[in-house]
Amino acid sequence: MFNERNYYQIKSDHQIFDNIIKEKKKVGYYELPFIEIESLVQYAASINKKNILVVGIGGSSLGTRAIYEFIKPSRKLNKNLEFLETIDPLKISSCFKRIDLENTHFIIVSKSGKTVEPISILRYIYSRVKLVSSNCSVITEKGTPLMHFANENKLKFFELDSNIGGRFSVFSVVALLPLAIVGIDIKKILKGARDVSNDFFSKGEIYSKIFSKARFLVENKARFNINVLFSYSSSLEAFNRWYVQLWAESLGKININGTRQALTPVALIGPIDQHSFLQLIIDGVRDKTISFIKIQDFADSTLIPKDKNKSFEYFNNAYLENLSFNALINHQADATIESVKAEKDIPFDVTLIPQVDETSIAKLMFSYQLLVSVIGSFLQIDTYNQPGVESGKENLITALKKI
Amino acid sequence: MFNERNYYQIKSDHQIFDNIIKEKKKVGYYELPFIEIESLVQYAASINKKNILVVGIGGSSLGTRAIYEFIKPSRKLNKNLEFLETIDPLKISSCFKRIDLENTHFIIVSKSGKTVEPISILRYIYSRVKLVSSNCSVITEKGTPLMHFANENKLKFFELDSNIGGRFSVFSVVALLPLAIVGIDIKKILKGARDVSNDFFSKGEIYSKIFSKARFLVENKARFNINVLFSYSSSLEAFNRWYVQLWAESLGKININGTRQALTPVALIGPIDQHSFLQLIIDGVRDKTISFIKIQDFADSTLIPKDKNKSFEYFNNAYLENLSFNALINHQADATIESVKAEKDIPFDVTLIPQVDETSIAKLMFSYQLLVSVIGSFLQIDTYNQPGVESGKENLITALKKI
Repeated sequence: MFNERNYYQIKSDHQIFDNIIKEKKKVGYYELPFIEIESLVQYAASINKKNILVVGIGGSSLGTRAIYEFIKPSRKLNKNLEFLETIDPLKISSCFKRIDLENTHFIIVSKSGKTVEPISILRYIYSRVKLVSSNCSVITEKGTPLMHFANENKLKFFELDSNIGGRFSVFSVVALLPLAIVGIDIKKILKGARDVSNDFFSKGEIYSKIFSKARFLVENKARFNINVLFSYSSSLEAFNRWYVQLWAESLGKININGTRQALTPVALIGPIDQHSFLQLIIDGVRDKTISFIKIQDFADSTLIPKDKNKSFEYFNNAYLENLSFNALINHQADATIESVKAEKDIPFDVTLIPQVDETSIAKLMFSYQLLVSVIGSFLQIDTYNQPGVESGKENLITALKKI
Repeated sequence: MFNERNYYQIKSDHQIFDNIIKEKKKVGYYELPFIEIESLVQYAASINKKNILVVGIGGSSLGTRAIYEFIKPSRKLNKNLEFLETIDPLKISSCFKRIDLENTHFIIVSKSGKTVEPISILRYIYSRVKLVSSNCSVITEKGTPLMHFANENKLKFFELDSNIGGRFSVFSVVALLPLAIVGIDIKKILKGARDVSNDFFSKGEIYSKIFSKARFLVENKARFNINVLFSYSSSLEAFNRWYVQLWAESLGKININGTRQALTPVALIGPIDQHSFLQLIIDGVRDKTISFIKIQDFADSTLIPKDKNKSFEYFNNAYLENLSFNALINHQADATIESVKAEKDIPFDVTLIPQVDETSIAKLMFSYQLLVSVIGSFLQIDTYNQPGVESGKENLITALKKI
């Protein structure tokens, strides 16, 4: 029949798994759960400043924030982690007003070591406080301008491997260094990621779940072009943002046949957005799949108390008395899931996080990275590049040079 | 020809404007810019607590936050405004750890006056601090359980008209009360909204822009089902969330012909997300329209300084020296807009906010409310109800009663 073609079929799970195995030799993030971190842990322990300020945009900060903000509300950490991830004048001013610069350790993160935004902030910081080996670490690829800057100023330099993209760098020094400094157990983080990796590559339960989800999303991508993450805790807000970046930047691509691919991520906080966005899900066009995330045990026993003030009877909701907020939020989640389920034609899944700790969030994040890799492989795109953001960067530099 | 039909054509601008004029008599938000606020301003001035805590979910807090977080970074306000908008145990605990309850004025906002979440929080607050006329105000509809509770406990009660929905309540007492207390000029807020209203209803420039945008979105809703807001300042983050709620809950509806309608909102922060989500916009499927929002004058003159440290030369970006962050963020925005424009087939518009003040944000928000009303009228839906969120609420109460 034909001698040439420019279309493709969706491959079998077996073929995709083979692709992933091949990819594993080139793409750096797969090996991160197995890296040696003893010296990192020791260096982190030597930092004695009260504030840690991470300067980095996108992949250089979102993963770190996702883990930090998940853990922080339920843990007493003895250091304060801050992020400068934008050149917004109002954010920069308020950040520098809030923190004591003399008692701050700066971590400058830039893969290319020359991105306009973090370097602008670095220049500004340098005018406020001299950066030296005892108050600044630098994370960048080998050979970048930032590495040379670090070496010349004797700043501690950590190398980021060139085959690890920003949005896949959460299990590298990028997130592990700041997290370790503030007292988060990075060994447990890697343990969680390792568990997922081992299950996936031995074709266990996680492998099956990831493949069935990826295949469904790819086979139905024209119909369900929007994927909604519905996280039932505000502590997952930064995780939501990390997910949006991972999904959008990895999967918004032109594939090998020159066809535009896109699964658009939307991320919501359940207890808030079930009062609004849920309307769009229930009555709107059927163009969305929903992924619910629930936390089983918040390790918080705060109760809605019973009060002897009679006027509470107006509310006619004695069923709330002595209920914990932990139970209430999970009932809320279940009620929303039930509403979605009752519609019958909205595809959804539910992920249960057993508790608020390092292992749980690491498992969730490594699973999502694998899911994105598998979807990308099904779509026959390059999951790891980002040609579409480059033109904006070039336009910016061209404009700045003309000033 | 036919004697019956169940389809419709998109109506003319003239017909839609007539609809809006009719709607104006029933839907309360249109008249809010013209309300009398003297007594509200006086009451606000009488509150002398340091912290103001708004307890309210969705429409009861998002609009307030949008204005507060836009103004706050660039203004010295003498009170601290906090929000409890979720029953997340971790959020509740951290909020009550952070603020001094004795020095706090509580504002309980619930339209129906019986929503499980704010009432649960109210019960909890009451167990920690006695609510009396001097530390608590209540905003709810007339005749609700919450109104009765307020009256019986002699709390200050503000009535919310029944024809003003939560997501259209930002120019009512819901937002004006807390904003006035912390020192934001609510007269200027209403002035901004009035200017927009007057222009729109006299078919001025804003009228033309709203109608042309609404018509485009409706005519192309099947092709471009996602609307991306690309805001160039972190101070617009809460505005973004307000927009997502307004858009999703108003426009995700079944229309008069039984057809599911949906324009899905996605909200981004430019300086951060242009490094990631932009990839999906540029190379992904053409299913998105983009609305950029830029702030012209941040009233911040922070410069990226020139430093005599020679090692900065490695970065080869002397063009940054003595550039203000204000100029840089706007160059960033322009570079991204240029990238999108270069694609030629991505519909976009750009809104310029002249400065960070009450009038600017009010104009933006009232314009968006009118836009949503006009789109809703074109789609022949009920823009102001939310039947799709009710089933979740009912499921929750049913489950709680069974415990």
